[in-house]
Amino acid sequence: MSPQFNLDGEIVPAEEATVSVEDRGFQYGDGAFETLRAYGGDIFEWEAHADRLDRTCEALSIDHGIDRAELRERIDETIAANEFDDAYVKCSITRGVQPGKLTPDPDVDPTVVVYAKGLPRGGVDGESVWDDPATLQTVKTRRMPDSAIPASAKTHNYLNGILARAELIDTADEALLRDTEGAVVEGAASNVFFVHDDALHTPSATRDLLPGITRRVVIDLAEDAGVPVRTGTYEPSDVREAREAFLTNTTWELRPVDEVDGISVGGGAVTELLSRLFDELVEERHY
Amino acid sequence: MSPQFNLDGEIVPAEEATVSVEDRGFQYGDGAFETLRAYGGDIFEWEAHADRLDRTCEALSIDHGIDRAELRERIDETIAANEFDDAYVKCSITRGVQPGKLTPDPDVDPTVVVYAKGLPRGGVDGESVWDDPATLQTVKTRRMPDSAIPASAKTHNYLNGILARAELIDTADEALLRDTEGAVVEGAASNVFFVHDDALHTPSATRDLLPGITRRVVIDLAEDAGVPVRTGTYEPSDVREAREAFLTNTTWELRPVDEVDGISVGGGAVTELLSRLFDELVEERHY
Repeated sequence: MSPQFNLDGEIVPAEEATVSVEDRGFQYGDGAFETLRAYGGDIFEWEAHADRLDRTCEALSIDHGIDRAELRERIDETIAANEFDDAYVKCSITRGVQPGKLTPDPDVDPTVVVYAKGLPRGGVDGESVWDDPATLQTVKTRRMPDSAIPASAKTHNYLNGILARAELIDTADEALLRDTEGAVVEGAASNVFFVHDDALHTPSATRDLLPGITRRVVIDLAEDAGVPVRTGTYEPSDVREAREAFLTNTTWELRPVDEVDGISVGGGAVTELLSRLFDELVEERHY
Repeated sequence: MSPQFNLDGEIVPAEEATVSVEDRGFQYGDGAFETLRAYGGDIFEWEAHADRLDRTCEALSIDHGIDRAELRERIDETIAANEFDDAYVKCSITRGVQPGKLTPDPDVDPTVVVYAKGLPRGGVDGESVWDDPATLQTVKTRRMPDSAIPASAKTHNYLNGILARAELIDTADEALLRDTEGAVVEGAASNVFFVHDDALHTPSATRDLLPGITRRVVIDLAEDAGVPVRTGTYEPSDVREAREAFLTNTTWELRPVDEVDGISVGGGAVTELLSRLFDELVEERHY
């Protein structure tokens, strides 16, 4: 069966899900999105994702008028239409088509798309979505600053991450981005953690990064397990010289880092412990 | 008649010009564009626009495989299909649909859209596209730095300009953006010029700005007319305290600035001279 998406409330085959070339999402990347993960047909951390989507739309002043229950219903219908249990789901809301050019009109007729794709379940007994640990490479492209586009907004303006990924050479598959001051902030589509001096470190969200929902879950799990968590300002060498390093995002969950800039790092006890605790949390909530 | 666009080589009514929701232009703003102006059915400064489109596609590594003559033919066909003489034309090239997620694939099946809308001719005897002089407002949103996305690339990642425009209050209709160091660089969709001490000033293209084609034409016209041109680093107060100020872009040509941050500036002899020289250049080339 061809995958089914939800376009403005209607389930349609993916190949029929189209938008006008005048949609501001297409012309300007003028839209918000969330990447979600369904386990056993249910969305992990739904409220946190819905809250962030609200914040992104508020930052972009996209007053879309679709309430959370309605949005969730569209997501659930999309998962059901595909007969998925475990899935990758993406929800996009753009400002739609508007008269005039660049200046946004407060009167919005949004375009709302729910994408879905089947995923392996992962979890305690399953396999991960990623095939191998990540190979990280520090790139020249700098993370766009909060002063240009709010760092915590998850928008369709994703060229910064694409340019970072386009720099990767050899086997590298995730870019390590620094902010304009040279501090490590995040991957192109992930948050970064590393272990040093028996503490778990991750760049502080006071810097220009998108603090992921998986990042927050992992910090909570670490603190509950008695692993000290430090957030701060770091350089690429801190990650390269770490005992362990891993990445987080909704799709990957926790993904160990094998190598940073050609230097072997690898997983270890802390990464394994947190991966297990994450899997157990998923099982606990979604069975 | 409904406007006709060109979608991947086919003339279609605007309302039937659609792209997949999986197009990377829609998902990530992963595309390049140019805004063009047709006078008497011919494109003003075609080679300069085509060169910049090439440079943007190169910066984004979008190897679209469509040669310049083919692209120009599609543009000409679109203008002809609409029976336009004088028109606004926009040409977009995105990376299209690709397997996988963020990391771009070198193998590109691009989406190419030519948009067209009728415009008043402007020029020596005609009326301008803009109704009134511009009201400028310095905004908090800072111009995206070159280190995050190459400043000279004209891409579908336009949220930075949209957020700047969304800040405008009262009658302001163009945002004056500063770079991350606080220097004035450009408008959300225009370059800025001002007159001070009998010289024409504009922010240096060594700063993070998109050096417009109209900007370059105006600099050439000024130099030919013996008006000294200075490029440098300026603050908003330099524009506010100027004797004259104007904006340039392909659609507006030269548009006088009436007010900056509530302070009256207005046009004057230099703005009028350069507007006239620009109009004469258009007439000379396109009749």
